[in-house]
Amino acid sequence: MKHFTTVNHIDDLDSLLLLVKQIKSDPYSYKELGTNKTIGLLFFNPSLRTRLSTQKAAVNLGMNCITLNLNNEGWSLEFEDGAVMDGNKAEHIKEAAQVVSQYCDIIAIRSFPTLTDKEKDEAEHVIHSFLQYATVPVISLEGASEHPLQAVADILTIQEYKTKQKPKVVLTWAPHPKALPHAVPNSFIKMMQKSNVDFVITHPKGYELNPDITKNSTILYDQDEAFQNADFIYAKNWSNYNDYGKITSQDPSWMVTTEKMALTNNAKFMHCLPVRRNQIVSDAVLDGDNSIVIPQANNRTYATQAILTKILQDEDH
Amino acid sequence: MKHFTTVNHIDDLDSLLLLVKQIKSDPYSYKELGTNKTIGLLFFNPSLRTRLSTQKAAVNLGMNCITLNLNNEGWSLEFEDGAVMDGNKAEHIKEAAQVVSQYCDIIAIRSFPTLTDKEKDEAEHVIHSFLQYATVPVISLEGASEHPLQAVADILTIQEYKTKQKPKVVLTWAPHPKALPHAVPNSFIKMMQKSNVDFVITHPKGYELNPDITKNSTILYDQDEAFQNADFIYAKNWSNYNDYGKITSQDPSWMVTTEKMALTNNAKFMHCLPVRRNQIVSDAVLDGDNSIVIPQANNRTYATQAILTKILQDEDH
Amino acid sequence: MKHFTTVNHIDDLDSLLLLVKQIKSDPYSYKELGTNKTIGLLFFNPSLRTRLSTQKAAVNLGMNCITLNLNNEGWSLEFEDGAVMDGNKAEHIKEAAQVVSQYCDIIAIRSFPTLTDKEKDEAEHVIHSFLQYATVPVISLEGASEHPLQAVADILTIQEYKTKQKPKVVLTWAPHPKALPHAVPNSFIKMMQKSNVDFVITHPKGYELNPDITKNSTILYDQDEAFQNADFIYAKNWSNYNDYGKITSQDPSWMVTTEKMALTNNAKFMHCLPVRRNQIVSDAVLDGDNSIVIPQANNRTYATQAILTKILQDEDH
Repeated sequence: MKHFTTVNHIDDLDSLLLLVKQIKSDPYSYKELGTNKTIGLLFFNPSLRTRLSTQKAAVNLGMNCITLNLNNEGWSLEFEDGAVMDGNKAEHIKEAAQVVSQYCDIIAIRSFPTLTDKEKDEAEHVIHSFLQYATVPVISLEGASEHPLQAVADILTIQEYKTKQKPKVVLTWAPHPKALPHAVPNSFIKMMQKSNVDFVITHPKGYELNPDITKNSTILYDQDEAFQNADFIYAKNWSNYNDYGKITSQDPSWMVTTEKMALTNNAKFMHCLPVRRNQIVSDAVLDGDNSIVIPQANNRTYATQAILTKILQDEDH
Repeated sequence: MKHFTTVNHIDDLDSLLLLVKQIKSDPYSYKELGTNKTIGLLFFNPSLRTRLSTQKAAVNLGMNCITLNLNNEGWSLEFEDGAVMDGNKAEHIKEAAQVVSQYCDIIAIRSFPTLTDKEKDEAEHVIHSFLQYATVPVISLEGASEHPLQAVADILTIQEYKTKQKPKVVLTWAPHPKALPHAVPNSFIKMMQKSNVDFVITHPKGYELNPDITKNSTILYDQDEAFQNADFIYAKNWSNYNDYGKITSQDPSWMVTTEKMALTNNAKFMHCLPVRRNQIVSDAVLDGDNSIVIPQANNRTYATQAILTKILQDEDH
Repeated sequence: MKHFTTVNHIDDLDSLLLLVKQIKSDPYSYKELGTNKTIGLLFFNPSLRTRLSTQKAAVNLGMNCITLNLNNEGWSLEFEDGAVMDGNKAEHIKEAAQVVSQYCDIIAIRSFPTLTDKEKDEAEHVIHSFLQYATVPVISLEGASEHPLQAVADILTIQEYKTKQKPKVVLTWAPHPKALPHAVPNSFIKMMQKSNVDFVITHPKGYELNPDITKNSTILYDQDEAFQNADFIYAKNWSNYNDYGKITSQDPSWMVTTEKMALTNNAKFMHCLPVRRNQIVSDAVLDGDNSIVIPQANNRTYATQAILTKILQDEDH
């Protein structure tokens, strides 16, 4: 594996998941792999799980970890080719990416979408600029349109908790007071399409995600119907994709409640976190026995550690 | 020791102080104890000594140290049970504490009081929420009503500099331009009450601290009388406790000066730092031979290292 | 070497450069030197290269590295002697420097100039306060009037890329939309004056730097004349030194372009970065084969690592 900025970068999901499970059972088994290797974590946006679990994963591998908040600790970056830099941007991504590549063996970046410029977001403007100019492997800590490390933790969690060969997994939209990115649902959908699951997406009409991503998946506009016989309910809000970045529904009837969960096959409840209580999901569901959001978050460490392991191993060759 | 968020968590002060002294004489003696252990330092507020000395203490024990500024690097946290999270708080403490517990073997938190909501502050709203939901040991890096790591460094410093079996220790209020918390005086008072010292508190009338804490201690409203024969003067400002969080006096006659120190038994001058020069204490006293604020700050490292050692040792059992 | 806050602190440049080259060829050769040693990196200002390369250098030496953003993570500092601290400054540099000296074996500080108070900037107000009160070695990560770590990387780069015994090196002013410090040109000039190079400074009339620094160097007001036969072009903006901190020219004809570079002896192009594209230098030059700004930035790690090595070695004696 060279880079990891999209679920598409996974060649062989089964072997990756074997590695994740092996690492989870013995987290320090590759502790020599990272000796004298440095990972640079560059944040344009807030992060709790990703920030901490990536540091943990790197240290478990014996790596040195440098974090940088690009908005206030570094220089503001220019991303446009040919820019006349007479404004507030002090450094061009061309130099920044090449320079950081000399100090770090892996560069990891968190960069949320604008939610106003669809084309730029879909082009993964920031992450792709790093991919273009960096001379070392690049990892997404959540980009504008994907959050692939989350998706690896998600499928691991589903494999750990499933009670049948091919479980039914439902991704359901749920209401939220702010306009949220499409990165998590996009990567989750891609991951489900690679997995042996019966996968259904449900959301209000008009909240269709990028059809290039969803095209192979069943979409239902009736949440109750979608929940029938589900083994896993994965809740997530996203803003409107067609009316890009807008909130066109906050319909509270889409909140995941005990009543909704009663329609399922005793389904486990999943969410990437952070989650808005009593907006996305009721307290009763989130605090209930079927909620697996905490072990799901724990799997972030091992998912990331496996990706780092793959990259370091492939660098050595 | 399971948690350390209050001086009350110290079962056996004598044995703790023996450990602190042993660690100070040989700071790397427990360097294997922290192998593959991670401490997460979560800051809601500024910190210099606590931030650096805790990192130093952790590294001296061979621990991995992850710092997070919760206000700008993570998500804003909701602490209320049953909250409908439709405002600016993105994550509930229930999830945050459980998730961080999976990445960290110890969680350490700095969270200052509101100084407007006495009940919430006295309940140690933030730290107690972590205690409630975290599944690993929790350490206070200064909470709303206590700063117990400071108090351990304080008693160590007194033991190192005392010239008689039972020295006279005076905690004196001193003026300050801002409303300050009660955490440092509260923990210091609790620590003095556990120690073999002749302890006196002095402050202007009306500046009484929580009577549940001070009830066993002598309070004098005459600073000059309190200073008589003192071996240690511990200066500290705090805001009014009864007229909660208000500044009701900035009386400059309470500043610790050379003239005031002349009333003592050649007392050592202590302060937790940061200290306002020529408000709390005159330059002459702070820069004088009897000021021990710098070695007092140095003891922060060893106090914290001993607490971490106790927690790691008890985790292993 | 005790401190490193100015190029003047270099006693023997040749032996330093031998060490830098040795470290560059084998970066982990001194990995035991930093065992149980801590460096504290204190930032008053943004930093990318310096922040990352110093962390990398420290870790390459086996040191523990603690970073602190003084503006938002610590307390605001008072630097004036005798100050009555009744304003917004919570801690005096006297205490801060002494306290940090107890937690760290080396203190490194980045502190830009005011560009309004020439006297204070030239006195290196902040760095000199740390030099005065710290009890451990102090390193400049760019001060008000010098950036000596950059200058070590610069001379190393020139030595690596020169094709004749005594190359011609030209420091040229170039236009920039913001008022920039004099630190980089000052340290570069001092370094060139110590080196076996034919050195020329060129800038518009009125943009003379501190004559105490430039007095031994040739200054030309005609950029084209200066570029004749040059082997290295080092571009840099600085604000007016005489009309202190002002921008009195943004003359675009001083931008380094392909046409200008054609006047040279196939010169290499250097800049300390970050650089404003199409202000300081055209895209064509910066992206061209003769641009060595990226390897120049890479040398920051080894320059810093050599300085840390010298300081740690001298501490041991």
